[in-house]
Amino acid sequence: MPQRDFEDFPAGLVIELGSYTVSEAEIIAFARQFDPQPFHIDPEQAKSSIFGGLIASGWHSGAIFQRLMVGHFLEQGAASQGSPGVDEVRWLEPVRPGDTLRGRFTVVGAKPSNSRPTLGIVRSRGELINQRDEVVFSALGTGFFSRRPSA
Amino acid sequence: MPQRDFEDFPAGLVIELGSYTVSEAEIIAFARQFDPQPFHIDPEQAKSSIFGGLIASGWHSGAIFQRLMVGHFLEQGAASQGSPGVDEVRWLEPVRPGDTLRGRFTVVGAKPSNSRPTLGIVRSRGELINQRDEVVFSALGTGFFSRRPSA
Repeated sequence: MPQRDFEDFPAGLVIELGSYTVSEAEIIAFARQFDPQPFHIDPEQAKSSIFGGLIASGWHSGAIFQRLMVGHFLEQGAASQGSPGVDEVRWLEPVRPGDTLRGRFTVVGAKPSNSRPTLGIVRSRGELINQRDEVVFSALGTGFFSRRPSA
Repeated sequence: MPQRDFEDFPAGLVIELGSYTVSEAEIIAFARQFDPQPFHIDPEQAKSSIFGGLIASGWHSGAIFQRLMVGHFLEQGAASQGSPGVDEVRWLEPVRPGDTLRGRFTVVGAKPSNSRPTLGIVRSRGELINQRDEVVFSALGTGFFSRRPSA
Protein backbone atom coordinates (compact mmCIF):
# COMPACT_ATOMS: atom_id res chain seq x y z
CA MET A 1 0.00 0.00 0.00
CA PRO A 2 1.49 3.38 -0.99
CA GLN A 3 1.81 5.91 1.79
CA ARG A 4 -0.40 8.97 1.58
CA ASP A 5 1.51 12.19 2.00
CA PHE A 6 0.80 15.89 2.27
CA GLU A 7 0.68 16.06 -1.53
CA ASP A 8 -2.38 13.75 -1.52
CA PHE A 9 -4.52 16.33 0.28
CA PRO A 10 -5.06 19.21 -2.15
CA ALA A 11 -7.51 22.00 -1.29
CA GLY A 12 -11.01 21.05 -2.39
CA LEU A 13 -10.60 17.32 -1.79
CA VAL A 14 -13.67 15.78 -0.11
CA ILE A 15 -13.34 12.42 1.65
CA GLU A 16 -16.29 10.40 2.94
CA LEU A 17 -15.05 8.77 6.13
CA GLY A 18 -17.68 6.10 6.76
CA SER A 19 -20.26 5.98 9.51
CA TYR A 20 -20.67 5.28 13.23
CA THR A 21 -23.85 4.35 15.10
CA VAL A 22 -23.91 5.54 18.70
CA SER A 23 -25.95 3.64 21.30
CA GLU A 24 -27.62 4.95 24.44
CA ALA A 25 -25.24 2.79 26.49
CA GLU A 26 -22.20 4.37 24.84
CA ILE A 27 -23.56 7.92 25.29
CA ILE A 28 -24.12 7.28 28.99
CA ALA A 29 -20.78 5.51 29.52
CA PHE A 30 -18.80 8.33 27.89
CA ALA A 31 -20.66 11.02 29.82
CA ARG A 32 -20.41 9.25 33.18
CA GLN A 33 -16.65 9.34 32.72
CA PHE A 34 -16.23 12.81 31.22
CA ASP A 35 -19.41 14.92 31.19
CA PRO A 36 -21.88 13.79 33.86
CA GLN A 37 -24.58 16.38 33.25
CA PRO A 38 -28.13 15.03 33.70
CA PHE A 39 -29.06 15.40 30.02
CA HIS A 40 -26.08 13.17 29.08
CA ILE A 41 -26.40 10.40 31.69
CA ASP A 42 -30.04 10.13 32.86
CA PRO A 43 -32.73 9.41 30.26
CA GLU A 44 -35.55 10.38 32.65
CA GLN A 45 -34.06 13.70 33.78
CA ALA A 46 -33.06 14.40 30.18
CA LYS A 47 -36.73 14.34 29.15
CA SER A 48 -37.44 17.43 31.22
CA SER A 49 -34.26 19.23 30.11
CA ILE A 50 -34.08 21.82 27.35
CA PHE A 51 -33.02 18.99 25.02
CA GLY A 52 -36.18 16.87 25.59
CA GLY A 53 -34.20 13.65 25.88
CA LEU A 54 -30.76 12.15 26.22
CA ILE A 55 -28.02 13.66 24.05
CA ALA A 56 -24.35 12.83 23.60
CA SER A 57 -21.64 15.00 25.15
CA GLY A 58 -20.15 17.35 22.60
CA TRP A 59 -16.70 15.94 23.35
CA HIS A 60 -18.10 12.51 22.53
CA SER A 61 -19.22 13.78 19.11
CA GLY A 62 -15.73 15.15 18.55
CA ALA A 63 -14.17 11.85 19.55
CA ILE A 64 -16.48 10.00 17.13
CA PHE A 65 -15.38 12.29 14.30
CA GLN A 66 -11.76 11.65 15.25
CA ARG A 67 -12.40 7.90 15.18
CA LEU A 68 -13.84 8.07 11.67
CA MET A 69 -11.05 10.30 10.40
CA VAL A 70 -8.22 8.31 11.96
CA GLY A 71 -9.75 5.00 10.87
CA HIS A 72 -9.81 6.24 7.29
CA PHE A 73 -6.27 7.60 7.40
CA LEU A 74 -4.87 4.41 8.93
CA GLU A 75 -6.62 2.32 6.26
CA GLN A 76 -5.20 4.57 3.54
CA GLY A 77 -1.66 4.69 4.93
CA ALA A 78 -1.79 8.40 5.68
CA ALA A 79 0.43 8.96 8.69
CA SER A 80 -0.57 12.08 10.55
CA GLN A 81 2.32 13.82 12.28
CA GLY A 82 0.07 15.34 14.91
CA SER A 83 -2.10 18.41 15.21
CA PRO A 84 -1.69 21.70 17.05
CA GLY A 85 -5.41 22.08 17.59
CA VAL A 86 -8.85 22.61 16.13
CA ASP A 87 -11.00 25.71 15.68
CA GLU A 88 -14.68 26.55 15.39
CA VAL A 89 -15.95 23.35 16.99
CA ARG A 90 -19.75 23.53 16.67
CA TRP A 91 -22.39 21.24 18.12
CA LEU A 92 -25.11 22.16 15.66
CA GLU A 93 -27.79 19.57 16.44
CA PRO A 94 -28.21 17.07 19.29
CA VAL A 95 -26.76 13.58 18.84
CA ARG A 96 -29.26 11.08 20.23
CA PRO A 97 -29.20 7.34 21.00
CA GLY A 98 -29.29 5.22 17.86
CA ASP A 99 -28.14 8.00 15.55
CA THR A 100 -25.92 6.94 12.67
CA LEU A 101 -23.33 9.60 11.92
CA ARG A 102 -21.29 9.74 8.75
CA GLY A 103 -18.07 11.68 8.62
CA ARG A 104 -16.93 14.06 5.92
CA PHE A 105 -13.47 15.61 5.60
CA THR A 106 -12.99 18.55 3.24
CA VAL A 107 -9.55 20.04 2.63
CA VAL A 108 -9.89 23.82 2.82
CA GLY A 109 -6.20 24.65 2.57
CA ALA A 110 -2.80 22.99 2.20
CA LYS A 111 0.65 24.53 2.39
CA PRO A 112 4.20 23.46 3.21
CA SER A 113 5.39 24.25 6.72
CA ASN A 114 7.84 27.13 6.85
CA SER A 115 9.48 26.02 10.06
CA ARG A 116 9.63 22.28 9.31
CA PRO A 117 10.36 21.69 5.62
CA THR A 118 9.66 17.94 5.79
CA LEU A 119 6.03 18.62 6.80
CA GLY A 120 2.95 20.10 5.18
CA ILE A 121 -0.02 21.68 6.94
CA VAL A 122 -3.53 20.58 5.95
CA ARG A 123 -6.51 22.66 7.05
CA SER A 124 -9.80 20.79 6.89
CA ARG A 125 -13.46 21.09 7.65
CA GLY A 126 -14.65 18.02 9.53
CA GLU A 127 -18.35 17.23 9.76
CA LEU A 128 -20.67 14.60 11.18
CA ILE A 129 -24.01 14.18 9.41
CA ASN A 130 -26.88 12.17 10.84
CA GLN A 131 -29.38 9.82 9.19
CA ARG A 132 -31.66 12.81 8.43
CA ASP A 133 -28.82 14.55 6.57
CA GLU A 134 -28.45 17.14 9.32
CA VAL A 135 -24.91 18.34 10.02
CA VAL A 136 -24.67 17.77 13.78
CA PHE A 137 -20.96 18.53 14.31
CA SER A 138 -18.48 20.72 12.51
CA ALA A 139 -14.89 21.71 13.22
CA LEU A 140 -11.96 23.29 11.42
CA GLY A 141 -8.92 21.06 11.89
CA THR A 142 -5.21 21.53 11.35
CA GLY A 143 -2.96 18.55 10.74
CA PHE A 144 0.66 17.92 9.85
CA PHE A 145 1.57 15.35 7.19
CA SER A 146 4.93 14.29 5.79
CA ARG A 147 5.92 15.72 2.42
CA ARG A 148 7.21 13.45 -0.33
CA PRO A 149 11.01 13.61 -0.61
CA SER A 150 10.67 14.42 -4.31
CA ALA A 151 8.37 17.37 -3.67
CA MET B 1 -27.22 24.91 48.27
CA PRO B 2 -27.98 28.08 46.29
CA GLN B 3 -28.05 27.72 42.54
CA ARG B 4 -25.29 29.44 40.59
CA ASP B 5 -26.63 31.54 37.75
CA PHE B 6 -25.26 33.59 34.89
CA GLU B 7 -24.80 36.50 37.31
CA ASP B 8 -22.25 34.44 39.27
CA PHE B 9 -19.80 34.37 36.34
CA PRO B 10 -18.54 37.93 35.85
CA ALA B 11 -15.69 38.63 33.44
CA GLY B 12 -12.34 38.18 35.16
CA LEU B 13 -13.50 35.42 37.50
CA VAL B 14 -10.92 32.61 37.78
CA ILE B 15 -12.02 29.20 39.09
CA GLU B 16 -9.61 26.41 39.99
CA LEU B 17 -11.39 23.21 38.98
CA GLY B 18 -9.37 20.54 40.77
CA SER B 19 -7.09 17.94 39.24
CA TYR B 20 -7.14 14.66 37.34
CA THR B 21 -4.36 12.08 37.04
CA VAL B 22 -4.38 10.15 33.78
CA SER B 23 -2.95 6.63 33.64
CA GLU B 24 -1.34 4.82 30.73
CA ALA B 25 -4.23 2.35 30.77
CA GLU B 26 -6.79 5.16 30.43
CA ILE B 27 -4.83 6.85 27.62
CA ILE B 28 -4.70 3.57 25.68
CA ALA B 29 -8.35 2.67 26.35
CA PHE B 30 -9.64 6.06 25.18
CA ALA B 31 -7.47 6.00 22.06
CA ARG B 32 -8.33 2.41 21.13
CA GLN B 33 -11.95 3.53 21.03
CA PHE B 34 -11.60 6.95 19.41
CA ASP B 35 -8.09 7.73 18.14
CA PRO B 36 -6.09 4.54 17.41
CA GLN B 37 -2.92 6.18 16.12
CA PRO B 38 0.25 4.32 17.11
CA PHE B 39 1.54 7.12 19.36
CA HIS B 40 -1.70 6.94 21.39
CA ILE B 41 -2.11 3.15 21.74
CA ASP B 42 1.28 1.43 21.48
CA PRO B 43 4.01 2.42 23.98
CA GLU B 44 6.75 0.73 21.91
CA GLN B 45 5.80 2.31 18.56
CA ALA B 46 5.27 5.63 20.34
CA LYS B 47 8.94 5.67 21.38
CA SER B 48 10.03 5.97 17.76
CA SER B 49 7.33 8.55 16.89
CA ILE B 50 7.87 12.30 16.77
CA PHE B 51 6.52 12.40 20.34
CA GLY B 52 9.15 10.03 21.79
CA GLY B 53 6.60 8.14 23.85
CA LEU B 54 2.93 7.53 24.45
CA ILE B 55 0.72 10.64 24.54
CA ALA B 56 -3.00 11.12 25.13
CA SER B 57 -5.38 11.85 22.28
CA GLY B 58 -6.20 15.54 22.08
CA TRP B 59 -9.89 14.70 22.36
CA HIS B 60 -9.08 12.85 25.57
CA SER B 61 -7.48 16.02 26.98
CA GLY B 62 -10.59 17.96 26.04
CA ALA B 63 -12.81 15.37 27.71
CA ILE B 64 -10.68 15.57 30.88
CA PHE B 65 -11.10 19.35 30.97
CA GLN B 66 -14.85 18.90 30.50
CA ARG B 67 -14.91 16.43 33.38
CA LEU B 68 -13.16 18.87 35.72
CA MET B 69 -15.40 21.78 34.67
CA VAL B 70 -18.66 19.86 34.86
CA GLY B 71 -17.68 18.26 38.17
CA HIS B 72 -17.09 21.71 39.65
CA PHE B 73 -20.32 23.15 38.26
CA LEU B 74 -22.40 20.22 39.49
CA GLU B 75 -20.85 20.54 42.95
CA GLN B 76 -21.61 24.26 42.97
CA GLY B 77 -25.16 23.95 41.67
CA ALA B 78 -24.41 25.76 38.42
CA ALA B 79 -26.71 24.28 35.82
CA SER B 80 -25.31 24.72 32.34
CA GLN B 81 -27.96 25.11 29.68
CA GLY B 82 -25.70 23.71 26.99
CA SER B 83 -23.04 25.06 24.68
CA PRO B 84 -22.98 25.88 20.98
CA GLY B 85 -19.31 25.04 20.65
CA VAL B 86 -15.73 25.82 21.51
CA ASP B 87 -13.00 27.75 19.71
CA GLU B 88 -9.23 27.83 19.58
CA VAL B 89 -8.72 24.34 21.00
CA ARG B 90 -4.94 23.99 21.40
CA TRP B 91 -2.90 20.95 22.35
CA LEU B 92 0.13 22.86 23.54
CA GLU B 93 2.21 20.14 25.16
CA PRO B 94 1.93 16.34 25.16
CA VAL B 95 -0.11 14.69 27.94
CA ARG B 96 1.77 11.59 29.10
CA PRO B 97 0.95 8.62 31.34
CA GLY B 98 0.90 9.58 35.01
CA ASP B 99 0.49 13.30 34.39
CA THR B 100 -1.63 15.18 36.91
CA LEU B 101 -3.62 17.91 35.20
CA ARG B 102 -5.33 20.72 37.04
CA GLY B 103 -8.11 22.68 35.40
CA ARG B 104 -8.55 26.44 35.35
CA PHE B 105 -11.62 28.29 34.11
CA THR B 106 -11.34 32.03 33.45
CA VAL B 107 -14.38 34.08 32.46
CA VAL B 108 -13.37 36.30 29.56
CA GLY B 109 -16.81 37.70 28.78
CA ALA B 110 -20.40 37.54 29.98
CA LYS B 111 -23.52 39.01 28.41
CA PRO B 112 -27.26 38.37 28.37
CA SER B 113 -28.56 36.48 25.35
CA ASN B 114 -30.43 38.72 22.92
CA SER B 115 -32.52 35.91 21.46
CA ARG B 116 -33.30 34.09 24.74
CA PRO B 117 -33.81 36.59 27.56
CA THR B 118 -33.83 33.92 30.30
CA LEU B 119 -30.25 32.95 29.41
CA GLY B 120 -26.84 34.52 29.64
CA ILE B 121 -23.77 33.68 27.57
CA VAL B 122 -20.46 33.07 29.34
CA ARG B 123 -17.24 33.03 27.32
CA SER B 124 -14.37 31.35 29.09
CA ARG B 125 -10.78 30.30 28.67
CA GLY B 126 -10.36 26.70 29.79
CA GLU B 127 -6.90 25.33 30.55
CA LEU B 128 -5.23 22.17 31.75
CA ILE B 129 -1.90 22.60 33.52
CA ASN B 130 0.43 19.72 34.31
CA GLN B 131 2.57 18.97 37.37
CA ARG B 132 5.42 21.01 35.84
CA ASP B 133 3.12 24.06 35.53
CA GLU B 134 3.02 23.75 31.74
CA VAL B 135 -0.29 24.65 30.10
CA VAL B 136 -0.95 21.53 28.01
CA PHE B 137 -4.48 22.31 26.79
CA SER B 138 -6.34 25.52 26.14
CA ALA B 139 -9.74 26.29 24.63
CA LEU B 140 -12.17 29.19 24.40
CA GLY B 141 -15.58 27.97 25.48
CA THR B 142 -19.09 29.35 25.20
CA GLY B 143 -21.79 28.30 27.64
CA PHE B 144 -25.39 29.22 28.38
CA PHE B 145 -26.52 29.72 31.97
CA SER B 146 -29.90 30.68 33.41
CA ARG B 147 -30.33 34.31 34.49
CA ARG B 148 -31.79 35.15 37.86
CA PRO B 149 -35.44 36.18 37.60
CA SER B 150 -34.65 39.38 39.48
CA ALA B 151 -31.92 40.37 37.08
